[in-house]
Amino acid sequence: MRRAVALAARGLGSTSPNPVVGCVVLDRAGGTVGEGWHQRAGGPHAEVHALAEAGDDARGGTAVVTLEPCSHTGRTGPCTQALVDAGIARVVYAVPDPSPAARGGGDTLAAAGLDTASGLLAAEAAAGNAAWLTAVRRGLPYVTWKYAATLDGRSAAADGTSRWITSEESRADVHRLRAESDAVLVGSGTQLADDPHLAVRGIEGATQPLRVVLDTEARTAPTARVLDGAAPALVAVAEDADATRLAAAAEVVRLPRDGDGRGLELTALLRELYARDVRSVLLEGGPALAGAFLAAGAVDRVIGYLAPVLLGAGPAALGDAGISTIAAALRLTVTETARLGPDLRLTAVPGTASGAPPVAAREAAGTAADTAADTATEAAPEARKENRP
Amino acid sequence: MRRAVALAARGLGSTSPNPVVGCVVLDRAGGTVGEGWHQRAGGPHAEVHALAEAGDDARGGTAVVTLEPCSHTGRTGPCTQALVDAGIARVVYAVPDPSPAARGGGDTLAAAGLDTASGLLAAEAAAGNAAWLTAVRRGLPYVTWKYAATLDGRSAAADGTSRWITSEESRADVHRLRAESDAVLVGSGTQLADDPHLAVRGIEGATQPLRVVLDTEARTAPTARVLDGAAPALVAVAEDADATRLAAAAEVVRLPRDGDGRGLELTALLRELYARDVRSVLLEGGPALAGAFLAAGAVDRVIGYLAPVLLGAGPAALGDAGISTIAAALRLTVTETARLGPDLRLTAVPGTASGAPPVAAREAAGTAADTAADTATEAAPEARKENRP
Ligand SMILES: NC(=O)c1ccc[n+]([C@@H]2O[C@H](COP(=O)([O-])OP(=O)(O)OC[C@H]3O[C@@H](n4cnc5c(N)ncnc54)[C@H](OP(=O)(O)O)[C@@H]3O)[C@@H](O)[C@H]2O)c1
Ligand SMILES: NC(=O)c1ccc[n+]([C@@H]2O[C@H](COP(=O)([O-])OP(=O)(O)OC[C@H]3O[C@@H](n4cnc5c(N)ncnc54)[C@H](OP(=O)(O)O)[C@@H]3O)[C@@H](O)[C@H]2O)c1
Repeated sequence: MRRAVALAARGLGSTSPNPVVGCVVLDRAGGTVGEGWHQRAGGPHAEVHALAEAGDDARGGTAVVTLEPCSHTGRTGPCTQALVDAGIARVVYAVPDPSPAARGGGDTLAAAGLDTASGLLAAEAAAGNAAWLTAVRRGLPYVTWKYAATLDGRSAAADGTSRWITSEESRADVHRLRAESDAVLVGSGTQLADDPHLAVRGIEGATQPLRVVLDTEARTAPTARVLDGAAPALVAVAEDADATRLAAAAEVVRLPRDGDGRGLELTALLRELYARDVRSVLLEGGPALAGAFLAAGAVDRVIGYLAPVLLGAGPAALGDAGISTIAAALRLTVTETARLGPDLRLTAVPGTASGAPPVAAREAAGTAADTAADTATEAAPEARKENRP
Repeated sequence: MRRAVALAARGLGSTSPNPVVGCVVLDRAGGTVGEGWHQRAGGPHAEVHALAEAGDDARGGTAVVTLEPCSHTGRTGPCTQALVDAGIARVVYAVPDPSPAARGGGDTLAAAGLDTASGLLAAEAAAGNAAWLTAVRRGLPYVTWKYAATLDGRSAAADGTSRWITSEESRADVHRLRAESDAVLVGSGTQLADDPHLAVRGIEGATQPLRVVLDTEARTAPTARVLDGAAPALVAVAEDADATRLAAAAEVVRLPRDGDGRGLELTALLRELYARDVRSVLLEGGPALAGAFLAAGAVDRVIGYLAPVLLGAGPAALGDAGISTIAAALRLTVTETARLGPDLRLTAVPGTASGAPPVAAREAAGTAADTAADTATEAAPEARKENRP
C-alpha cells in the first residue's frame, strides 16, 4: 500500500476533477506484477494501468489500491468490472470513495465474490488525497493560502520593493504548488500592482492551473500578462461591473458583491470554481484577499515561505482578517517544516489539537474517521517527517 | 573531546565573565580517569576538577580540554601549573584562548616539556563558547535578540492583548535563554507597558542575569517588578535625566543620548555592561529597541519563537531598523529550527553564506579561522542538527 500511495502522488495536479489513485497488482504468490496510477482526467484509472501491466499474472492475485475502486461508468468504464474481468481474487483499498457517483465499489466487488478489505494505511492514503476528499465531501474546492514573508512578517520593504525576499528554491517550490493546483487566485490589488503571470514555469509536463483574478470593478487591463493565453484565465467581476473592455480579452464571470463591502462573495466564487471542476485552489494573495478568505473560514491549509530576512518596516503579509483580540486569533497546527535553500517552508492547518477546528478541518478529519483513523493520526504522517531525530 | 564539549556546556550561564570549559583526563592506557567543567566564576577551572578526580592516575596521562589552559593567576592559580604538577604528559585542546590575560597556555605547557596539540573539534568547541569568544575578541558583549511573534509577524493583537501568543514550552525556553545570559535587556516601552519581572523562573540553581532597562528619561516606577531585588537590576538613563525618584529604588547608570534621537547610545551601554563582566546579553525587546540594535549592527544572533497563529492586525514584532528598501534588508542565515510544543523556534545569525556578514559575525568567524576552521564549518554543528533526514 505504501508503494501504491507513492504511485498515486505522481498524479497530483493533473487528475482533477478526479482524485489521485495508485494501484499495485500482486500475483498469487504475492509478487508485484503490475503498477499504475491515475495520470490524468479522462485517461485510464490506476487499476486499469496496473492490470494491463500484470496481464495474465493478475489471475487469482490481489489488487492494492489507495482509493475504493469506482463502480460507475464515466469517461472510462468501472474499475470494479475491470478487476473482476482480470480474475483478481482479492482487493485491498485504503480509503472509501465519498463521491456520490463513484462510491460503493467495495460492495460491488464483494457481491461479485471478491475478497475485499479496506482501511489499510488509510490515514496516509487520505493525506495524499486531502484536497480532493475535502472538496468532494464539502462540494467546494480545497483552499491553500500561500504567502512569502520576512521573519518579521513583511511581504515588501517600506518603498514597496520585494524582489527577491525569498530564494530561488522557494520560488521554484511555488511553481510546484501551482502545478498541483487546479486554480490559482489573486485579488485585484496584486493584479494591478504586480501584473503577475501566474502560470507554471520550469516543470515539464505540468498541467497549467486556471488563473483567476478577483476584480470587482473589472479594472484588469486587457493586456494583463494573466490574459496572455499561456494557460486558461478567468476574471471574476461584480454583477453590475462594467466589463465591456475586459470581455474581449478574457473570460469574465459575474459574482454577487459580498455583504462586508470587501469585494466579491467568496462562497459564490468557490461554488463557481467547483462547478468548473476545480477541486484545489492556491490562493496567492495579496494580504487583503487572504484576510477575507481567513475571515470567511475558507482556508484549509497555509503554506508560508519564511525568508531569514528582517525589514522592520513595509506592508504586512496578512491584512485584516476581522480579528481584534488575542482570544479570537486564528490558531493553526504546524504539520510540516522544511528548508528550501536559505528559507523555511511552514505548512499548517486551521485548528489546534485541543481546540475545535473550523469546518474545513472537521471535514478532512471526517474522512479519516470513516476509515477508522482519527484527526491525530491523519495529521501524523506529515508531522512525523520532521520529528525524526 | 566530544565529551569535554558536552561537559563544558553544563556551565553555560554561570561562568561569566569566564568561558565555559570542559576537561577529560585519560590515564596512560587511554582510559577516562577524571572529568570536570568550569562551574562558576571564581570556582576551580575544568582542569582542576578533572585532575582532582583523576588523582595519581593522571601521571603520564593526557588532558583533553575544550579551551587552551590558562597560564595566569586570577581568582584561582594557572591551570598550566596544575597540569604540570599532576604529571600530565600530553595536553590536547580545541580552541586557543583569545583573552589578553589568560592566553599563551599552550606555549607555557610546551616549554615545560609537555606534548601539546590544538584544533581538535575546534568548530564544535568554539560553537559552545560562541558568545564568550565573540565578546572577548570584540570587547563588547554578545547580543541575542529574542522575539515572539505570530506567523504574520505580530507581537500582539490590535487591542494590545498578547497573552498568550506562544506556548508554555516556548515561554519555558525563554527562561533557559535568560539563565544562559549574563544580562537581560528591555526598553522603556516594554517596561512601562508590561512591567516585566525578567528574572529566571523554573530552573533550579540558575544564576540570575542582570536585569537592565533602557529608560532615557528615568520613567520606570520605583515600584517596578524589575526592581524587586529577586535578581540584580540596572536602569540606564540619560546623563541629564532626572532620576532622583528612581535612584532610591534602583541602581542607575548614566549614558549619553544617541545621535539619532532614538534614546541612549547603545555602544556606550554595551561597553558599560562589558565592564560589569557581562559577556552575553539577551535583548528581549520590544520592537523599537530591537530595531535600534539591528540598525546599529549590534545583534549577533536572532532567536524567534513563531506561534502558528494568524492575526492580520496588531503591532509588528520588529520596529524601524532604518531599512527602507529590499536591497538594504538585513539578511540572516538560519542555523537551527526546533519545535517547541505547537511553536517553532528559529535561530539565525546575521550574514549570508555568500554576502559579507556584519562585524559581529566576522569576529566569530575569526575565532574559527584561528583554529583552521572556516565560517561554514563553524556554522555546521548547529545546522547539521536538523539536516539529518
Ligand atoms: N507576500 C506575498 O506572498 C504576496 C502575495 C501576493 C501579493 N502580495 C503583494 O500584495 C500587494 C497587494 O495587496 P492587496 O491586499 O491590495 O491585494 P489583493 O489582496 O491581491 O487584492 C485585494 C483586492 O481584491 C479585491 N477583492 C475582490 N473580492 C474580494 C474579497 N472578497 N475580499 C477581499 N478583496 C477582494 C478588492 O478590490 P476590488 O473589490 O476593488 O476588486 C481588494 O481590494 C501587492 O503589492 C503584492 O505585491 C504579496
Ligand atoms: N513580541 C515580543 O517578543 C515582545 C517583546 C518585548 C516587548 N513586546 C511588546 O512591545 C511593546 C513595547 O514596544 P516599544 O517598541 O514601545 O518598546 P521598547 O522597544 O521596549 O522600548 C522602546 C523605548 O526604549 C527607549 N530607548 C532607550 N534607548 C533606546 C535606543 N537606543 N533605541 C531605541 N529605544 C531606546 C526609548 O524610550 P525613551 O528614550 O523614552 O526611554 C524607546 O521608546 C509592549 O507592548 C510589549 O508587550 C513584545
